[in-house]
Formats: sequence, C-alpha cells, structure tokens
Amino acid sequence: MGHDMSLSSQNSTDTTSAAKAATPGAKADANMQWGGRFAGGPSQIMQAINASIGFDKAMWKQDIAGSLAHAAMLAHTGIISAEDEAAIREGLTAIGKDIAAGHFEFSEALEDIHMNIEARLSERIGEPGKRLHTARSRNDQVATDFRLWTRDALDGLDQQVASLMRALARRAEDHASDPMPGFTHLQTAQPVTFGHHLMAYVEMLARDRGRLADTRKRLNECPLGSAALAGTSFPIDREMTARTLGFDRPTANSLDSVSDRDFALEYLSALSIMAMHLSRLAEEIVIWCSSPFSFIRLSDAFTTGSSIMPQKRNPDAAELVRAKTGRITGSLVSLLTVMKGLPLAYAKDMQEDKEPVFAATDAAALSLAACDGMVRDMTANTAQMRALAGSGFSTATDIADWLVRVLKVPFRTAHHVTGRLVAKAEEKGVDLADLSLAEMQAEEPGITDDIYSVLTVEASIASRTSEGGTAGSNVQREARRWLATLDAEAAPESKGA
Amino acid sequence: MGHDMSLSSQNSTDTTSAAKAATPGAKADANMQWGGRFAGGPSQIMQAINASIGFDKAMWKQDIAGSLAHAAMLAHTGIISAEDEAAIREGLTAIGKDIAAGHFEFSEALEDIHMNIEARLSERIGEPGKRLHTARSRNDQVATDFRLWTRDALDGLDQQVASLMRALARRAEDHASDPMPGFTHLQTAQPVTFGHHLMAYVEMLARDRGRLADTRKRLNECPLGSAALAGTSFPIDREMTARTLGFDRPTANSLDSVSDRDFALEYLSALSIMAMHLSRLAEEIVIWCSSPFSFIRLSDAFTTGSSIMPQKRNPDAAELVRAKTGRITGSLVSLLTVMKGLPLAYAKDMQEDKEPVFAATDAAALSLAACDGMVRDMTANTAQMRALAGSGFSTATDIADWLVRVLKVPFRTAHHVTGRLVAKAEEKGVDLADLSLAEMQAEEPGITDDIYSVLTVEASIASRTSEGGTAGSNVQREARRWLATLDAEAAPESKGA
Amino acid sequence: MGHDMSLSSQNSTDTTSAAKAATPGAKADANMQWGGRFAGGPSQIMQAINASIGFDKAMWKQDIAGSLAHAAMLAHTGIISAEDEAAIREGLTAIGKDIAAGHFEFSEALEDIHMNIEARLSERIGEPGKRLHTARSRNDQVATDFRLWTRDALDGLDQQVASLMRALARRAEDHASDPMPGFTHLQTAQPVTFGHHLMAYVEMLARDRGRLADTRKRLNECPLGSAALAGTSFPIDREMTARTLGFDRPTANSLDSVSDRDFALEYLSALSIMAMHLSRLAEEIVIWCSSPFSFIRLSDAFTTGSSIMPQKRNPDAAELVRAKTGRITGSLVSLLTVMKGLPLAYAKDMQEDKEPVFAATDAAALSLAACDGMVRDMTANTAQMRALAGSGFSTATDIADWLVRVLKVPFRTAHHVTGRLVAKAEEKGVDLADLSLAEMQAEEPGITDDIYSVLTVEASIASRTSEGGTAGSNVQREARRWLATLDAEAAPESKGA
Amino acid sequence: MGHDMSLSSQNSTDTTSAAKAATPGAKADANMQWGGRFAGGPSQIMQAINASIGFDKAMWKQDIAGSLAHAAMLAHTGIISAEDEAAIREGLTAIGKDIAAGHFEFSEALEDIHMNIEARLSERIGEPGKRLHTARSRNDQVATDFRLWTRDALDGLDQQVASLMRALARRAEDHASDPMPGFTHLQTAQPVTFGHHLMAYVEMLARDRGRLADTRKRLNECPLGSAALAGTSFPIDREMTARTLGFDRPTANSLDSVSDRDFALEYLSALSIMAMHLSRLAEEIVIWCSSPFSFIRLSDAFTTGSSIMPQKRNPDAAELVRAKTGRITGSLVSLLTVMKGLPLAYAKDMQEDKEPVFAATDAAALSLAACDGMVRDMTANTAQMRALAGSGFSTATDIADWLVRVLKVPFRTAHHVTGRLVAKAEEKGVDLADLSLAEMQAEEPGITDDIYSVLTVEASIASRTSEGGTAGSNVQREARRWLATLDAEAAPESKGA
Repeated sequence: MGHDMSLSSQNSTDTTSAAKAATPGAKADANMQWGGRFAGGPSQIMQAINASIGFDKAMWKQDIAGSLAHAAMLAHTGIISAEDEAAIREGLTAIGKDIAAGHFEFSEALEDIHMNIEARLSERIGEPGKRLHTARSRNDQVATDFRLWTRDALDGLDQQVASLMRALARRAEDHASDPMPGFTHLQTAQPVTFGHHLMAYVEMLARDRGRLADTRKRLNECPLGSAALAGTSFPIDREMTARTLGFDRPTANSLDSVSDRDFALEYLSALSIMAMHLSRLAEEIVIWCSSPFSFIRLSDAFTTGSSIMPQKRNPDAAELVRAKTGRITGSLVSLLTVMKGLPLAYAKDMQEDKEPVFAATDAAALSLAACDGMVRDMTANTAQMRALAGSGFSTATDIADWLVRVLKVPFRTAHHVTGRLVAKAEEKGVDLADLSLAEMQAEEPGITDDIYSVLTVEASIASRTSEGGTAGSNVQREARRWLATLDAEAAPESKGA
Repeated sequence: MGHDMSLSSQNSTDTTSAAKAATPGAKADANMQWGGRFAGGPSQIMQAINASIGFDKAMWKQDIAGSLAHAAMLAHTGIISAEDEAAIREGLTAIGKDIAAGHFEFSEALEDIHMNIEARLSERIGEPGKRLHTARSRNDQVATDFRLWTRDALDGLDQQVASLMRALARRAEDHASDPMPGFTHLQTAQPVTFGHHLMAYVEMLARDRGRLADTRKRLNECPLGSAALAGTSFPIDREMTARTLGFDRPTANSLDSVSDRDFALEYLSALSIMAMHLSRLAEEIVIWCSSPFSFIRLSDAFTTGSSIMPQKRNPDAAELVRAKTGRITGSLVSLLTVMKGLPLAYAKDMQEDKEPVFAATDAAALSLAACDGMVRDMTANTAQMRALAGSGFSTATDIADWLVRVLKVPFRTAHHVTGRLVAKAEEKGVDLADLSLAEMQAEEPGITDDIYSVLTVEASIASRTSEGGTAGSNVQREARRWLATLDAEAAPESKGA
Repeated sequence: MGHDMSLSSQNSTDTTSAAKAATPGAKADANMQWGGRFAGGPSQIMQAINASIGFDKAMWKQDIAGSLAHAAMLAHTGIISAEDEAAIREGLTAIGKDIAAGHFEFSEALEDIHMNIEARLSERIGEPGKRLHTARSRNDQVATDFRLWTRDALDGLDQQVASLMRALARRAEDHASDPMPGFTHLQTAQPVTFGHHLMAYVEMLARDRGRLADTRKRLNECPLGSAALAGTSFPIDREMTARTLGFDRPTANSLDSVSDRDFALEYLSALSIMAMHLSRLAEEIVIWCSSPFSFIRLSDAFTTGSSIMPQKRNPDAAELVRAKTGRITGSLVSLLTVMKGLPLAYAKDMQEDKEPVFAATDAAALSLAACDGMVRDMTANTAQMRALAGSGFSTATDIADWLVRVLKVPFRTAHHVTGRLVAKAEEKGVDLADLSLAEMQAEEPGITDDIYSVLTVEASIASRTSEGGTAGSNVQREARRWLATLDAEAAPESKGA
Repeated sequence: MGHDMSLSSQNSTDTTSAAKAATPGAKADANMQWGGRFAGGPSQIMQAINASIGFDKAMWKQDIAGSLAHAAMLAHTGIISAEDEAAIREGLTAIGKDIAAGHFEFSEALEDIHMNIEARLSERIGEPGKRLHTARSRNDQVATDFRLWTRDALDGLDQQVASLMRALARRAEDHASDPMPGFTHLQTAQPVTFGHHLMAYVEMLARDRGRLADTRKRLNECPLGSAALAGTSFPIDREMTARTLGFDRPTANSLDSVSDRDFALEYLSALSIMAMHLSRLAEEIVIWCSSPFSFIRLSDAFTTGSSIMPQKRNPDAAELVRAKTGRITGSLVSLLTVMKGLPLAYAKDMQEDKEPVFAATDAAALSLAACDGMVRDMTANTAQMRALAGSGFSTATDIADWLVRVLKVPFRTAHHVTGRLVAKAEEKGVDLADLSLAEMQAEEPGITDDIYSVLTVEASIASRTSEGGTAGSNVQREARRWLATLDAEAAPESKGA
C-alpha cells in the first residue's frame, strides 16, 4: 500500500539541521554509504555533526555583548584604535538589530553564532572587523557567551521562583488555620493546616533560590582573555571586560577557563532539585484533584476538559510539571556524562553543553509558570479537608502527650495506653472523643475530663506552637514574614528600574 | 550600556514554541505574573506547556498511515461505509502531500499532530471526516503512531550499524595481520593485530543489532483499537489494522496498551549501550590521532583544521561522537524518570516520551554516520604500530608459555622465571631477544635455543590461534565471515526493492 | 561536650574494608597526609581502592565452577595431566566446602576472590595448583565468573517475575468482572474491571521476562580462553569449557571478550524497566490504601502499624518498592558512566561493574518478593470500587457510541451531543441514567429508550468485548490463558526436580 | 556435575541482611512462595525490605549525640527531670562505648539504629529511658541524625580536597616554568607549563570546596523538634538543641523538615561535579603514563606491576578514580529518582536516602586519597614534555600576534599570513624558526629579524603574562598564593586542636 511505502521513506524530527541530515529512514539501498542520508558524502556528515548554529544562535545577544566589551577594552589599552572600535560598535549594533528583526541569515557553513556574526561584521565594516578577534579565541569567547546566557536564564528563573513563593505564601496566609489531614505514607497522621502544608513548599523553594544564588556567585567570573588556552601576550585588561559584562572578576587560570563547565553543571543540579520539588507539588495536585480526595479544584485555565465529559478536569499542567523533572534530570546526566574523563583543555565534546542547558531552562521555566498559575487559581475545598482531618483517630498523639504532660507517664508507656484506647474506640466504631471517661479510666485511672479538651482537630492544631509547628498563629506569622521578605526584595528593584 | 540592557531583555533558545513562550528573561516587572513571559495569562501558559505540535509533527506520516489503516478496517467491518472510507483516504492522502510539500500550516491551538490532521480532514471532506475517530481515542492513536515512528527509526539505525560493521570488517580484512600493541590499562600488554582490534567492534555492534532486533520484536504489537483505556463496543477487527500497519499482532490488554512505553525505553537502552560502544571507538580515535601515538590519520573530511596551524587536524567528529553518548544516556534517564510511579492508565506525563526518543535517534544516527565515515577514510600508520608492538617486553608471556609447554614448568613458576629474565633485560637495557642463551639458562637451565623462536612480535601473534585469538588467519577468517553474513543479508533486500 | 568530640572522630559506613579505610572523619591534623585516614601511607590507600575481595567474594561458587571446567579441559587436551586435574578438583571442592561453611579466611592482600582461591589451592595441593592458571588470565576468568553470577541472578529473578505474574493472574481471575473506575490522569474515565487492571501488569511483566530471556541469550557465550586479551598459544578447547559451564558457545573475539560488559548493562536495563513497572504498581497500592480511596487493604504482614494508631496501616513495603527503582536506575547510570570512553581492552575501571549489578539484583529481588506478597495477601474493597466506578458520568462514552452505532451519527457529532447531555445532567445534579427520555431527545430527537441499556456500569463493561477490552469474559479468558502458560512452563521443571 | 548444582543453589552478595534474604537462587520449587527465599513467609520478606539497621548503624554516633542534646533540652525546659536526664546521659554514654568496642548486638527485629539504641537504653536504665522519646518522633530524629552524618562526611571530604589542592600547588610551584605541550582536542596547540596545567585543577577543586561550603550552610539547620510532621505541644526549646548539635538554627517548617532531603541531594551534586574533575585528572594520568606519552611516572605505591612484565606499571588507582565517578553520579540519580513525585510529609521511600550517600562518600574519599597520593609521588618527565612542547609548530600563534603587534596587521590577516608560513615550513620539513628571513618576507615584506625572538617555546610561554596566562611568573605567583591561603586556613585549626 502506498502509505506503507511513504512510512519508511523518511522520518525526521525537524528540530535541527543536523537532525534533518541524519534521521533514520528507509531500508538500505545496497550502494548507500552512511545510510543514504548523506548524499553529499563525508563533508555533509561532518557539517551536520559539527555545526552548532542550529542551537547556539540563541546566544546572539551574549555574543554581541561580549564582542562590544572586548573591542572597548582593546581600544582602551591601545591594542586597536578608537576609530576601529567605533566601527566595530556600530557594526555589531546594526547586526544585533538585524537579528532581532529576523533579517539575519544564519549560515551552517560558518558553523556557529560566533563566526556568523564576525563574518558578517567584516563584510559590513571591512578591516576593523578583522581586528576584533585580536587577543581572544573562540574558546574563551564561547565560554564567556555561555556564562552570560546561563546567568540571564538563572536570573529569569530566580524571579519565577520568587513569584511562585509569593503565590504560595498568599494562599497559605488565607488558609493559615484551615485544617487538612497531615499525611505520612499518604495515611492520615495528625491534623495540620493547609497553609502550613503550602508553606513547606515556600521553604523548599527558598533553598532553590539559595542554590541559584550560590551558582551565580561561582559562575560570575569572566573567562574572556584566556584566549585559546594559554592566555595572550597582548597587554589586555581583563578586569575591564569582566566589569563591563557584569562579572565580579576575571577567572584565575586560562587553561581552566576554557575547559570548565562547572557553572552549567551546578545550574543543572540546582534545577534538578527544584524540579523534584515541583514534581512533589504536582503529584499532590493530581491526587488532591482526584475525585476520592477532592481537596482542591483547579481553574479551567489549568485543566483540560473533554467535550464529552465536562466533569472531567484533567490536571494536565500538573502532570506535565511532574514529567518535566525527567527532562531536567536527564540533562544533568547528559552533561555529567559528556564531561567525564575529558583531558584538558578544550575538547569539542564540550559543544554538547548547550542543548541540555537550553532544554532544562525551558522545562524549568514552563514548570514554574504552570505551578504559579495553578496555585494562584486553585480553589480549596476546605470542608472536605476539614472532614478528613478529623477522621482516623488523628488526635491519638494528643492523648499520649496529655498523659505525659498531665500524668507524668513516661512517653513510651503513654504511647501504649493510647494504643489501647484507640483499639477500644475502633472496636466500638466510635471516635476517641466518644469514649466515656469510665472507658478511658479503665485503661488509665488517672485520666480526667480534661483529656477531652485535646481531642478536637482545632485543639490539636492550636497546641502545636513549637517553632515550625502547625499552629495557625505560627503559619500566619511565617506567611507574613515571607511575604514581607519577598516584597522588600522586589521594592528596591522596581525603584531602580 | 545599551547592550547590557538588551542582554537581559530576552533569552530564547527558539527551539519550540513552548520555549518561545517560557524562556527566562528580564528582571521582574513588579506587576508581572508568571514571570512576565505569559502576557496572555494562564491560557497562554497552558497552551505552551500542553501543546506538543512543536515536536510531534515529526510523526505526521505515521499518523496518516494509522488513520488510513483504521478507516479501511472501519469500512471492512461495516462500521463506516465504503464511500466514507474512500473520502477519508483521498483526504488524508492529499493532506500528506501538503505536509510533504511544506504547505500545511500547523496550529498550536489544535495541540498535536493528531488533531491538526483530523481537523483539516473534516474541513476538507466534511462529515466522513467526523466518522474517522469512531472506535479509537487519542490514547491508542498516539501509542500507535509513536510505535510506528520508533520502528522506522530503529530500522534506519539498524542499517547504519550494519554499514559500520561492514566498514570495520573491510578495514580489519586489510589489516588482519598488521601488528599493533595490544593494550590493557593503556599499557602495552601483548602484540595483537590491528584487524583483530577492529573486529572487536564488529562483535560489539553485532550485539547492538541483536538488541535492536529484540526491541523491534516486542515493539511490534499494535495498540490501535484499545481506545481510551477499556477497549470498545464496536465490532472492530484489530488483527486487520495490526497486519496492515506491519505489526505482528494486536496488543493483549487495552489498559496496558495506552499506558505502556516499554518499547521507547528498551530502544533508548539499546541506543545507550551502542553509544557507549561508539564512545570507546571515538576515544581510541582521539588517542590514536594524538601526535605521541600517531597510529592513524583521519581524512580531511573528518577533521577540522586551523588556518594557522595546518598540521592541526582536530578529530572533532570523534569527540562529538564521544560526547553524544551523554545525550543518549540522558534521554534514557529522562524517560525512566517520567514513567516512575505513574498510575495506570494514560497520564499526560507520557507526552514527555517523544523528545528524548527523537533527540537520541538524531544523536545515534549522526554518531553512526560519523564513525562509518571516519573508519572508511582513515589511514593506518602500520609502521608506527609495528614499532610500538615490539616494545616493552611485549612477548614476555610467550616465554612463560614456552617454559610451560616445552619444559613442563608449572605456570606460576614459569611466570616467576620470566619475571627474572625481564628484570635482567631491563637492567641491561636490552630486549628479551638480546639476552644470551647463557643468561637465560642462568635463570632456568632447561632453556634451549628454541626459545628465541617465540620472542618476535610476528611469532607471538601467529601462535595465538585459539578460538577468538589474534592470529592473522583467525582475524582474516572472522572478517570474511562477517562480510559474507552482511552481504547475504543485504542481497535479498536489494532484489526485493 | 564529650559527645561532640566523638561525633567528629570517625564516621564509617562499615560496608566494605575500603570504606573502613577511607571514610571521612575528623578535622585535619596539620601533619596528616591523605586526610589522616591512611596511617600506613600510600600502600594502604592503594590496597583500599584496589582490592575487590570485599564484594567479589560473592562470586566464589562461580569462580570454583569456572576453574573446575578449565582444569578438566586442560587435562582433556593434554595440557596438564589427569593426576594434576584430580588434585585440583579435590582441592577446589574442599575449598568450596570451607567457604560454604564459613571457614575460609579471605585476605585483602590477595585482592580478589580469584587470587584468594588460587593461593589457597596451591597452599593445599602444591604444584598442581600452580598449573591451574595455564592458558587463562584474570581478565577472562573474571569475565567468565561475572557472567555466571549474572546468569544465576537473572534466572532467579525470572522465576520471581513468573511467580508475581501468577499471583496477579489469580487475583485477576477472581476479580475478572468486578468493576472499578478506570482512570486516566487519575480522573475517572470509564468503568473497567479490577481483573483487567491487574492483567495489565501481567503483560508488563511478561515483557520483562522477554527482556531477561533475550539478555540471557546474548550473555550466554563463554569468554574463558580469551586469556589476557590476545588468546593463547596452548591447544585449548573452548567449546568444551563453554559447554561444561552451560554456555551456548565461546565468544568470538578475545579482545572484545575481556573488555565487554554489555551483559551487565543489558541486565541492568531490563531491571530498570521492570523496576519502573513495579514502581507503578507500588504507587497504585499506596493510593488505593489511602483512606479517601480505600480500594484495597493490605495484610498485616505487609503494613507497619503504629501502637498508637492501630488504624494506621502504613504501606511501607509498597513505598520501598517504589523507591528501589532509584537504586536500580542509578546502578544502570553508574555502569554506563564507567564504560563511557574506555579504550580496549581490559581497564581497571571495569572492576566497578560488580557492585551496581549486585545492588540492583538485591533491590529487584526484594521488590519482586514484596509485590508478590502484597498481591497475594491484599483484600479488595469491591463495594467501594463499584460505587466509584459509576460516578462521574463514567458511561458518557457509551452514549456517544450508541449514537454512532444506532443513529449513525458521525462520532465527532455524537461526542458533542453527549457533551450537552452530560452538562444537562451535571446542572441538574443527577446521573445520566436519571435524565428523562424527553430531556435526551431535546438534544437529539432520534434517541430511544434503548439508550438506557448502555448507561450502567455493568453494561458498559460487558460491551467492551474488542480484543484486549475490559469485558469480564475477556479478562477471565486472558487470566486463564496466562495461568495455563505459566503452569505449563513450571510443570516439566517440577517433574525434573 | 557437582559444581553445576552448587552453582545454582544460592547466589548472594552478602552485603546486607536484606540481600541475604532476597538474593536470587535456584530454579523454582513448585511449592515455593516468593521465590523460596523467604521460608518464613511474608513477615520475613517484610523484615528484609523494611529493616535499615544493616546500613543505618553507621549513624550510631550521630544518634547518640542527637539523643543527648534532646534529653538535655527536655530537662532544661522541665519536660523531664534532671535525674532522668542524668540517667539517660549515663546510659547512652555506656551504650556508645559498647558500640565503639564492638560489644553491641544489633537486632534486625528492632529495624533501625534508633530503636536499637532506645530499646537498649530502656533495658539498661528503665523508666527514664521511656521518657527520652517525648516531644520527638522517628521522623525528626532520623532527619537530624542523617544531617549530622552528612555534615561530618562533608567536613572530612573538604579537608581531603584541601590536601589535594596543596599537593597540586606544591608540584605546580616546582614545575611553574617547565614547558609541556598545551593540548586542545588532545592535539598540540600552544606551549604551556606543567605547573599551569596542575593549577587548573587547583581552581576546579577550589570551586568544589565552595560548593561543599554552600551545601553545609543550607544543611546546617536542625529539624529536631519537628516531631512526626506537625510540631509538638510540649514547650521545647529548639534553639537549644540546634546550638548544642552545632547547627546554625532550627528549621522553619515542621512538615518540610521531615520530608526534606535537599541536603543529601545537594551534597551528591557537589560530589558528582568533583568526581568529574577527578576523572579528568585520572584520564590525564592514564594517558601521561602510556608509553607513547611518558610524561610522568607513578610511584610503585600507586601502580600495580606484574611479576611477568616488570616494566608494566598499570595505573590502576587512576583508572579506579576515573571509574568511581560512575558510582557517584549513579548515587545522585538514585536519590533524585527516589524523591521524584513524593507527596508530603514523610514517606518510607525516603529510607532509600542513606545508601547512595554512604556509597558516594566512600567513593569520593577513596578517590581523593588516591589522587592526593598519586600527585605527591609522581615523577614528571620534563625532558619529554619539553621536547613535545616545541613540536607541531606550536608557536605559530606567536607569529600572528607579532604581526599584529609590530606590523599592525589585522588579526584575521595575520592569521592567514602565518598559515602560509607554516605551510611553507611543513613543505620543507623544518620548524618555523628554520625559515630564513627572506622566506618569511616573501609572505609579508614587513617581517624583521625580531620575529625569531617569539618562536621559541620559552619565549612563547614567557610572553603569556595576561592575567591567568601561562607565563612562569604567573604560575609561581598563583601557586604561592594558594599555598599561603591553604596554610592560613590550616593554621588556626592546628592551634585550636
């Protein structure tokens, strides 16, 4: 059948030009070399595997910024003339506008973004363009560009995390005292508040920001001027380029500078841990939305319905967030594998650094945006949560604590007494609060009426005032503290902007 | 500075529309929601995270093939009319031509390739188009399409592996008896032949093909007709659609059918092991090309030179092959992570299955093509290899074996005697063959002149005739056996084509 | 405080002798070399990192089996005498008994299991012991032993998978027609039967067994006789040793034989996919046991209670199964990373192959045993599942199908009509079956009374008779087919035993 | 044959008691349940999978330290009496001595280290022992103990990294000006100094220490007092326990505290990046030791010889370091996989956190110790490195730079002129310095005699004085700077100790 033939004729993901050249296809033609996909022979294979312009054009702004800083420094130190620098500046600015406007034609033959821009610059301004590459090499240039790109990405994600923290803290403030069943092993353990639960994610995300900040600190050294691997004999001023590009200082060893991708690995590690956090939130959203739980309802915007089953509100966004942790962890493993066992200094293997970082950034940005949206829009079913919070003898621990506190029974003994009380209640099919005082005293004669005061969900929650505990007052204070912190942080920036 | 501002304004990898929507950017605007990247609000985030058309359009041929088979079956079983089927067939064929010609406009609002094509079909042929989705659901449709795509990809890679095996076996036949130092721990151990070394890769790749074939066998069952998850009440004929699409049989459990991605995981596992093999070959090529080794010279096509250092022939292709094992292993980890702990049946998480498979396929196809090209084109420096093969007392084991064989000395004792002879030679700064008979007999009186016959590289190699051993005759036989096998396999196909 | 000091003084996991030597401890003493942990200096570090006896003693049986086969072959081919072989056989048998009885003292100075046994043999039987290592090397010996160990482990796990399949099929037979809500996205989609759901796992596990069998097939070639890397000049009979050890044939290339760990990687890949399957089952068990779901109750044996909350039946075993997928995937990543980029032939890196395989085997065996036990012992709450199966307009698809089948409405149109009916029902707060015929006809005049026949859970399930569908008859047939297959497979073995 | 039977009878890695119970064995006995390995039935499986005492006993010191701090706080706040606290303190101290002396019998029935110690305490001191568990739960206890263990491990590794940095900096100081070929793509690029190359690793390791320090900072909050998940109603003083145990502060959210394992993941991430660094050093050592390179010679202590080939100095330690990156990356993947998608708060999955951390710690400690030893002991073959540093037109870049600097030729043009000069030299088979001035001027008339001053290896190196460049003076300054920093850091500690 016709479609059967067409099936095997070509099979392409169309994502990159390399993919176009190499994707697998039909059964072998007896004479084909290299799978028939490289009609032009070796040079076409080489171009397909070697060229990076398909993805590294994403760094065009960083490349232009780096070249502008480099040219300014070359002029400042007298390595090139002020006129040359002016020509270069004008030329690069114009190229930047062309790219932004979509008028720049990228060439695979020129391999990467760096050569694409430099070649265009020389075409445009002539000899001054040929002076730009003095005292640098592609090795330090690409290291600089990639640090700049990663730093920008990191800053963007950091703002998204802050936004999600704010969303969670606001919802936590609203629900600071609303009971929900606190789970361990997905089994009801003790009552907590919904706000307390949401604030746990604020803490996790705060650590994520901490990791991003520490990554940024280590990333923020400038490799420009390391040249191929050995430094240069030109009297360059690396402090100047570093400062211009917003780096804290130049890197200290030129060999290390061109063979180091720690900043990308640390960034991917931080994203992997963050993605794991988001996968936990996503998993909870999926479970909370399932009809036996019905703890929350997502907004229409964050569910996909089904025209046939309008009640079906699939939490697709949450599922995709949960899944994207795979992409991010996989990206980290990719780059760790790439870097394993590479001799110094630069090796072409390191060109495989960018796609994992780009892919993980996209996945993280989407995941944060989706979580932010879901958290802002979701509706909590507080009645359902309250009802379940009181089930399952969830306040049994409160009895044990009462026995310790009031009767001075050792905790392990109190634990056993409580066990017997629960067994009795279960046998009778009643709640703990429904046991009579006589029934209680049969197990422990010292028990008094006072014990009933600790058996309600509300009393249980209110009593947990230890630092970090679930008492509503604690939760409200924590939510407000975080909101104030996040606001304080945002404030000077909006002034400055 | 202007460029500093532009730096932080936007930062996009431009790879997918999702990426376009979500890539991180500027410092926060105080009022932004969801990072300011989703101006349109929640619905834009949802579309960005939810839509898969950016990558799953790669499956358009498979989607059309699946729909054609489904429609033919619906007509055959009387579920739709022959006229409807004819209209569907014509419509889908025309759509296929449009897509192939680049005239099809994909819509992100229609989410995926399946809805894009079905919507276009209804637009084109009206009511019959609306009957196509009878007795199926997107869940079984996507499972079918993805199996078809993976099967095609697998078949293409299998042919590429066969081609690389042929290239290696041919070079091995040429160099069946050419000595090279056999390394363990990258230290000279015993002489082997270059052909023998190359044939080791033929064996590895043969196992890779075995894994691909077994994966294909398990993949080759048809999920179509499993519907959403429970099967259907329509009297469908799953044997017929399975057969039409080249599957061996329908799958046996509808719930499993829509929640199973084993075929993708097994495929990625097979590719991960294969990529590891290629990384070993690539590492050897890099080391062999380094000037202290100089065992081989890659062709111009597979090196990148440098206009400034014409002697510099960077083995970029080999380095990229070595690196791409990272992408492939990372893809496997991604999908294993995605699938971990997913409740049955279909979950949206599973939409994250395709990109890892697509990326790994591209990386594997490029790696195989590059290895194939490098192996065909490289030049062996046999003189250099021969010279090093004889250094380092590489035939010491042959003395020990002579002592065991001729003098019946126990092996462990022979081992010690040989150790003393090597120490003596090293002390004198000569080779083993340069020790006098008297010097030898001082360590073991039974030694005769005959021992010198085993001390040359050629004698050492020629003596290793045990099955699988390095003797030239063995290597030649193995190379020819494999070439005959590969030719025999290719022959019927070229007839059939 | 005293305990503070003790805290930092030493910190050991005590798992291996290597660990004992190297675990991190106190703050530095100014004169310490190598962290003060290696009092004996370099040689102690080297021994700690180099010795493998701490873990490879697990292969003692395989090592003895391999040596017995090798000695028998050496005698058969006249390389050693029959007397020597008899002495070796007796010696090794006695050593095996000593090890089994716990009377063998392993020495770290002898590095590994192979040297421990060979040294003891020579001590015990003198000169014949020194002849054992003729025509082999540690490289082919360890490759052989490790294949034997992995094959045994694989066979054991295969039996465990079969046992779990039997347990699932039996429970599926019991519950072949018992309704449960079929989920997609953890949202009720359509009714299925509990048996059908369980049988999905039988299919997954059957594929796991297929992968194990294919792995075994490729593993089952014997590297013994490949010697160090080049083969040997002794007239060995590799067919004989291969056959004796239960291998299908000798390996074909000696260089490949000593540098190949594909069998371990393929085994770990198969286990990773299987562990993912078990993690899905485990996740479902955890969710099913949560009180809002209450679909099943695990037996006491497979829950951990709490003396204080007897109702708390934590599904610890399921959680641990879910978690152990991490260990197994991690082991696969470990070994893929180890093997990346290794030049041929043997490299010491490959000594890091065993611990991941051992750890993954333990994790898989425990996970299978726990799943088997949980499945056999669990009690299904069929009433609760039945109740939920009918909620959420779960039979809406049946209306659409009825419209297509009876009224010949195109499916997409039927889909929209049904959507309106569901909306109406939802608005009224009733089930679909509670809508009057008039209400139905208001949306689609052609609807007749007959439509009510498809609206019950039972009718919906019974109608899904397509191959692989959820109809009880289908499920029962499948369960019985699998039980018969598994019994047939077990039968000849029980006869043989 | 006898040994064949024995082969299949049992197969155990003997590493843990869990392993003992679960390792796969013989073919199925028809009546076996759960693979015959769990003779005692379900409870034995449950114990095998559930008990953690096999590995968590490594935390005994941390557990005792935590309990001592908790008891002191309970007494200080009046929750228990001073007498009870004294009894507890004495009891725990005695138990600690017993464990240290190897006199403590661990019980698998008591599951974990916490219950083993608490049970023994009550046995020993009676009622006061039963009061210890007041106001805490196993959830916060295990989180505290594991943080303490990880912190100790981290501190130990940090010291080892510092020691390795010192070793490298010392060798770098010795070889600050000794030339070696600087490689990119393992092809000679430009001359560098051996000291410069070694200092690159000092920079990498300094970043590793930075990551460890940042991990420690985030880890160093105390979860004790979070109780099961909700905090407690007892008037505890979490500041006091935090301070006593050396933490900076208590954690802020009790739910987060018991479900957080970020500290372990961040630690494993830091170790993974560090292991990658060590794998690069190890790869270089392996290549440098290979006879074609012969850049360095490892000491006897760090090579394994062969009694038969005394020249064979296998760099086993380096290979094992290179391999251990697999274990560490695998451990990170394990724990990321475990944590993916876990609902809050504590889940038993989290018990799988320890073994990856323990295994990675051991691997890292051994790797650091081995690198430290190798670096201290190795001998550099400076003559061989010097000879290769000057080959391959390695100073071609210096010509181009001279043309730019002296003749003001644009760099890209200078690059082309140099290319022609190198081509001419290659054609004539001479070095660049051997071209006559006339030959040079034929390509660029402006060239003067002065150009010869930049063509030597020594001149090339000396000219690279840019910040971070390879000039000997730079390298010496950097080496001394680092040694001073490391000494300054060590000094106050040795005083304090």
